[in-house]
Amino acid sequence: MFMNINQFVENSLGQWRSQRSAHHLTFRHFEAIESVIDIVAVSPDDTAVIDLCKSYNIDPTQAVSPFQMTWEGHTDWDENAEMKGSCILVPIPDRTIPNRGKLLRDQGYAETIPAAADYHFTDDGTFVLLTSYDNAAAEEKIWFANPNLRFRVSLIKTSQGSGVVTASFSSEIRSLPAK
Amino acid sequence: MFMNINQFVENSLGQWRSQRSAHHLTFRHFEAIESVIDIVAVSPDDTAVIDLCKSYNIDPTQAVSPFQMTWEGHTDWDENAEMKGSCILVPIPDRTIPNRGKLLRDQGYAETIPAAADYHFTDDGTFVLLTSYDNAAAEEKIWFANPNLRFRVSLIKTSQGSGVVTASFSSEIRSLPAK
Repeated sequence: MFMNINQFVENSLGQWRSQRSAHHLTFRHFEAIESVIDIVAVSPDDTAVIDLCKSYNIDPTQAVSPFQMTWEGHTDWDENAEMKGSCILVPIPDRTIPNRGKLLRDQGYAETIPAAADYHFTDDGTFVLLTSYDNAAAEEKIWFANPNLRFRVSLIKTSQGSGVVTASFSSEIRSLPAK
Repeated sequence: MFMNINQFVENSLGQWRSQRSAHHLTFRHFEAIESVIDIVAVSPDDTAVIDLCKSYNIDPTQAVSPFQMTWEGHTDWDENAEMKGSCILVPIPDRTIPNRGKLLRDQGYAETIPAAADYHFTDDGTFVLLTSYDNAAAEEKIWFANPNLRFRVSLIKTSQGSGVVTASFSSEIRSLPAK
């Protein structure tokens, strides 16, 4: 199943209800997280997109299908924890290798600092995202089971990349179409 | 990452501690399952292997790396439920298409009847298994994060294959090497 970044972002736009399980492998702990995720297209001319590109010394005209992701949810790990946030994501396709590129974010998952991740698509249409932080690395796989159901596996690894600290799995069901 | 069925079975032999989360999508229910899985090699000359091949009119000499999987665990869904079982699995590689074939089982997951499933490997070494039952279909993806950690995503679908009833994710950590 062929997939490129434009199609992937297009298919992802809308509101999603997410059911996520995190496996904290060292403690064998199960965490259950429910959230609502909104994914909306952002204009390539948006100041946030242009500023993010500039901060990585990337020509903003290389940006393809930028989008904003906003989430709000709760976890059974800490019922008082506030789980909400928002980030702008800007794909920069590789100009020489197809189905591969960089994904710029104004805020990362594992650490709340800007992050540039590497993405590619496998031959079965799975989006794979690799992010290196100072003290950790993250690997995400996202794929669609059908247009209204997508799955996401996220691994948080030690910075060397061999040990997996947390593995999580999300089932995301579309609750609203793209605006 | 190249992977063939011999390597995949070889890498899977041993004892694994599994932490599994099932998402029952209709009810938005989270189920947590902990189990121990033993995977041991079985001789291609074993009567069980030969009988299973014969029941599918397959020449037993085509069998590659047959193995037995035994599991025992418990779920937070029903603390009195006994979750244990064992099955023989017999890979029959396709003789014309590489990294593809059938997997015979003397007992299926979704229904406790014999099942012949279709497997293939993606270009990133993920083992994908598709099984059709009378009233359901199952899709499994299994991949290794490192030699002692593997992940498994299992989907139980309606028999038409479009609707996903249950999605589950397992983190499997090796607790004993292959015997």
